[in-house]
Amino acid sequence: MSTWLPSLITATAEEGFDLAIKLSRVAVKKTQPDDAVRARLRPAYAEDFDALISISHVVATNFQTVAAANGYWRTEASA
Amino acid sequence: MSTWLPSLITATAEEGFDLAIKLSRVAVKKTQPDDAVRARLRPAYAEDFDALISISHVVATNFQTVAAANGYWRTEASA
Amino acid sequence: MSTWLPSLITATAEEGFDLAIKLSRVAVKKTQPDDAVRARLRPAYAEDFDALISISHVVATNFQTVAAANGYWRTEASA
Amino acid sequence: MSTWLPSLITATAEEGFDLAIKLSRVAVKKTQPDDAVRARLRPAYAEDFDALISISHVVATNFQTVAAANGYWRTEASA
Amino acid sequence: MSTWLPSLITATAEEGFDLAIKLSRVAVKKTQPDDAVRARLRPAYAEDFDALISISHVVATNFQTVAAANGYWRTEASA
Amino acid sequence: MSTWLPSLITATAEEGFDLAIKLSRVAVKKTQPDDAVRARLRPAYAEDFDALISISHVVATNFQTVAAANGYWRTEASA
Repeated sequence: MSTWLPSLITATAEEGFDLAIKLSRVAVKKTQPDDAVRARLRPAYAEDFDALISISHVVATNFQTVAAANGYWRTEASA
Repeated sequence: MSTWLPSLITATAEEGFDLAIKLSRVAVKKTQPDDAVRARLRPAYAEDFDALISISHVVATNFQTVAAANGYWRTEASA
Repeated sequence: MSTWLPSLITATAEEGFDLAIKLSRVAVKKTQPDDAVRARLRPAYAEDFDALISISHVVATNFQTVAAANGYWRTEASA
Repeated sequence: MSTWLPSLITATAEEGFDLAIKLSRVAVKKTQPDDAVRARLRPAYAEDFDALISISHVVATNFQTVAAANGYWRTEASA
Repeated sequence: MSTWLPSLITATAEEGFDLAIKLSRVAVKKTQPDDAVRARLRPAYAEDFDALISISHVVATNFQTVAAANGYWRTEASA
Repeated sequence: MSTWLPSLITATAEEGFDLAIKLSRVAVKKTQPDDAVRARLRPAYAEDFDALISISHVVATNFQTVAAANGYWRTEASA
């Protein structure tokens, strides 16, 4: 069975951050599943700094979850 | 006894994310229980990007809870 | 001595979610103790989707606390 | 030495919630120390539901801290 | 080497709260390093209750971090 | 392989705070990758106190993650 979220575990912190961005976007998509509508809204918010900061906040919240799931990737630290 | 929230435990991370969305919606529903009113409000917010981002933030907050409850589904990782 | 918050421990996750809603409302009530004023404000926000999402966010934040207090009701899982 | 915050430990969950409200107010006071200004602003926000919800969110955030500090008052549960 | 943040550890909860306020301000300063601009903006937000609540929310978020770092100052409790 | 986020581990709390700022900015950049657009938006938000407070909130959220990853830099405390 295919899934968009097979696991919260990622090889690196950077991949974990990308997963946090993905989680943030999927929640938007599940609320507004119409691709055409989202595409229409995108140009406006991408030039709206308040919206960009709000998105960054959502990503930060999801990154807390992903980072905790991965034990903060501590074993690859001190590289 | 039937309940809308029998448990926070889910089989997979993806099901956990869906539960986080459900928790976010139930809180709205418990504040505004009138289905007709919520149906009337829906078209507007679904085209309001600020609202979509805010919803994504709520989902992220609930997903922290669900993910922690499930030990981040670590045993099914590295699949 | 009577108290509105005898404990954060609840029998089920669903009761825990209801407690999170209660915590969110009590904070509003303690800031605006006048029942008449709150009753006057209610119709407007109950039809304001931004307000409903914000309330859902507060509930999510309180639910994190209640769920952690209850060890995420893990023992009753897989029911 | 007198202090407004001798400890995060409280006897009960209800007192902990009151402490969370206090923490939320002190942060406002430390940013706007002028009592007269805060008194002037109060009537407006106390009738502004968005403001009341925002305050409830801050209280919820502080309550997470106070509840964790107190081990969620688990020993007095099942009372 | 001088630093504005030598440690997250403080002697008391009250000093920890002050550190949380400092962390909140430094983030603003690092985004808008021009002292003259910040001084110009200050009178307006100090009379804007929404802004004061938002600041209190940031302080609450930082206080979670500082309090966790200090083990919630539990050893000095019951004083 | 080069990466913008090799690790969440930093030598000091101050470097950890800088990393939290970086995480906050990268999320903005990944949503609006056009450098010219971000440069155009910058002057306005840098003079908008609401935006500065919102940014501080995002930084606080990311700092929670970075600080937890580093065990709150406790070993270098009491310096």
